[in-house]
Amino acid sequence: MAKTEELLTDLRAATLADGNVPYGMIEDAAIALRDGRIAWVGAAAELPEEYRGFEKTALGGRLVTPGLIDCHSHIVHGGDRAVEFEMRLNGASYEEVARAGGGIVSTVTATRQADEAELLEDALKRVDVLIAEGVTTLEIKSGYGLDVETELRMLRVARRIGEVRPIRVRTSFLGAHATPAEYKDRDDAYIDQVCIPALRAAHAEGLVDAVDGFCEGIAFSTAQIARVFYVAKELGLPVKLHAEQLSNLGGAKLAASYGALSADHIEYLDEPGVEAMAAAGTVAVILPGAFYTLRETQAPPIAALREHGVPMALATDVNPGSSPLTSLLLTMNMGCTLFRMTPEEALRGVTQHAARALGLTDQGRIAPGQVADLAVWDVKHPAELAYRIGFNPLHKRIFGAST
Amino acid sequence: MAKTEELLTDLRAATLADGNVPYGMIEDAAIALRDGRIAWVGAAAELPEEYRGFEKTALGGRLVTPGLIDCHSHIVHGGDRAVEFEMRLNGASYEEVARAGGGIVSTVTATRQADEAELLEDALKRVDVLIAEGVTTLEIKSGYGLDVETELRMLRVARRIGEVRPIRVRTSFLGAHATPAEYKDRDDAYIDQVCIPALRAAHAEGLVDAVDGFCEGIAFSTAQIARVFYVAKELGLPVKLHAEQLSNLGGAKLAASYGALSADHIEYLDEPGVEAMAAAGTVAVILPGAFYTLRETQAPPIAALREHGVPMALATDVNPGSSPLTSLLLTMNMGCTLFRMTPEEALRGVTQHAARALGLTDQGRIAPGQVADLAVWDVKHPAELAYRIGFNPLHKRIFGAST
Ligand SMILES: [Zn+2]
Ligand SMILES: [Zn+2]
Repeated sequence: MAKTEELLTDLRAATLADGNVPYGMIEDAAIALRDGRIAWVGAAAELPEEYRGFEKTALGGRLVTPGLIDCHSHIVHGGDRAVEFEMRLNGASYEEVARAGGGIVSTVTATRQADEAELLEDALKRVDVLIAEGVTTLEIKSGYGLDVETELRMLRVARRIGEVRPIRVRTSFLGAHATPAEYKDRDDAYIDQVCIPALRAAHAEGLVDAVDGFCEGIAFSTAQIARVFYVAKELGLPVKLHAEQLSNLGGAKLAASYGALSADHIEYLDEPGVEAMAAAGTVAVILPGAFYTLRETQAPPIAALREHGVPMALATDVNPGSSPLTSLLLTMNMGCTLFRMTPEEALRGVTQHAARALGLTDQGRIAPGQVADLAVWDVKHPAELAYRIGFNPLHKRIFGAST
Repeated sequence: MAKTEELLTDLRAATLADGNVPYGMIEDAAIALRDGRIAWVGAAAELPEEYRGFEKTALGGRLVTPGLIDCHSHIVHGGDRAVEFEMRLNGASYEEVARAGGGIVSTVTATRQADEAELLEDALKRVDVLIAEGVTTLEIKSGYGLDVETELRMLRVARRIGEVRPIRVRTSFLGAHATPAEYKDRDDAYIDQVCIPALRAAHAEGLVDAVDGFCEGIAFSTAQIARVFYVAKELGLPVKLHAEQLSNLGGAKLAASYGALSADHIEYLDEPGVEAMAAAGTVAVILPGAFYTLRETQAPPIAALREHGVPMALATDVNPGSSPLTSLLLTMNMGCTLFRMTPEEALRGVTQHAARALGLTDQGRIAPGQVADLAVWDVKHPAELAYRIGFNPLHKRIFGAST
């Protein structure tokens, strides 16, 4: 039974409040929950009278953080690419892999062939790993259907995940992910005849929380993305963009000009791009899993983002090709190890700033009015969350309320 | 209750038999177990009459591999280095970290201060993560005591782990890990007055399965290591060595000249070193976790090792400073991603060749006479074990027998 009034005691709270206190930490804290929201947080000694009668849960001095938020995932997809991974390591060229049906084409084929139940069952294996690590909100993209029917099926599966598991799902329509084989060399026709109609249909069914695209030499130009964003704006949907991952096409600047929630990857982002994001309040979503897997050498401009006050989020980018990564804790370690983010930036990146990258104002911090999504950890210091590699110190998750 | 006679059916076996079949794979296999050993493995259709009456366990077509072996760990230690990790990422210099009591000194201090029960309790948290990933044998080193009493305490804790958990423990005495503060600039005195006496005492107590050292500019010279190895040989103990991690001092060649079980790290190993290892049958233990954490750029000479037929093992090197990594599956992915090992080399590296790095002849393959330590996986293809990042597809572990 979920409790409607609950008082968490004997804990240390990394509230992530802004200010000069690292992690917004409150030692010897208490957190009052009511009706699935945080009613109060502060030093236990200052607990107001009205919360003293709430049912108490003592947490043994453990660290409490906001529930983790994975704000960039392709977790719904058919098949895997393990055999392709092995082929490449056995020395196969990209051509040989392609001839063997590898690359994104293989994922599109497998996704089109899978029905809703199969896609759901397969995705849940990965979702359950994230939940076990304290993730309470997960963004899920379409983009492996590349036809109207399959794009909608992916998004329906995404919504279904939020119904069958205790996790909040936010969807992004990513029809502009790649051009399918049947539209080879006809990218514009694909955008007009498939991508935009699919977006309208998905929106009509209530399946779309945001609109995403992949702006890159191997994907779509800024002009093509702009046409998709134009429709998004018409439909009243926020936008975000895969930008500057492998080269600098000015995608982040375009995204910022549309007031994008986030620009993601951004390894090749330049200073004007950083400034545009700062001015627009666009979040930088850092994806070290793809950088690691693809053995990239150009790191995103962390120092410039920091200097300009661009909020940085961190996400798994879980996908079968460039980031078969299902650990948000490991993502935090990669953000620190590979990109020299601090452990505090890493934690804010999977809570406060991840929420912002999804346009969520009532998640990602421990503060009155925020949803009561919390993670309770068996660690002494919050830096341990990013420090360890392949270790999950979650004690328990609180999702809206303890159960 | 452990069964003494058991027949595993409906499975695919990656036996790791030598030969031309990748992974030594047998599709539609059966494995007969008797008295904690493998009695028979082969195609189910060819199962001999004598095993047909064994109690059957059907594995639903799952993949079975040998139990995993982590052949290089510093899993017993006091404290952690999360705060130091954070200090560095906040821009502290090595000097500032050292002044704050950081570095290996902090781990030595914490280890000396911890009693046996504390060291055990702390190590078991990490051991349990490895067990949950299918690890059935674990090597554990001393080396954070650097005095006789604490070196022995670490090894007693290592032995105790094998008593309180279903895992086989192999110990390595690593007194020659670093020179403690009280012997600063008196490395030779430390070797003579502490390291060698501690080795003799630990051996007398039956605590030592192998003798290890750290041969590096920041640690001990080949001449100093040779004095320790000389005593090891006198005691009839096999040797292994941390060698060529940060520079090429000829440690691997020295180790090979002592018929070492393994030379570990070896990023800077040169061709003559590779040849010496090949001639001596010394295993190359590859440790990508430290390479990743330290952001090294010089990869071990995988192609030369392959060419000369030097067996390659992979291990976590779990330690609080340079590799706070407790996932052997992630280590496999790192071996492939960072060093371009193949998924099959990665799997052989945590089974067959890891066993050899520990001098074990009855572990690491699925073959008659081998111990019945097996891992059963929810995967279609063995390459998936190395392909996924932060995902544990273990269905169950068989340790000597099903329970
Ligand atoms: Zn993506
Ligand atoms: Zn080591």
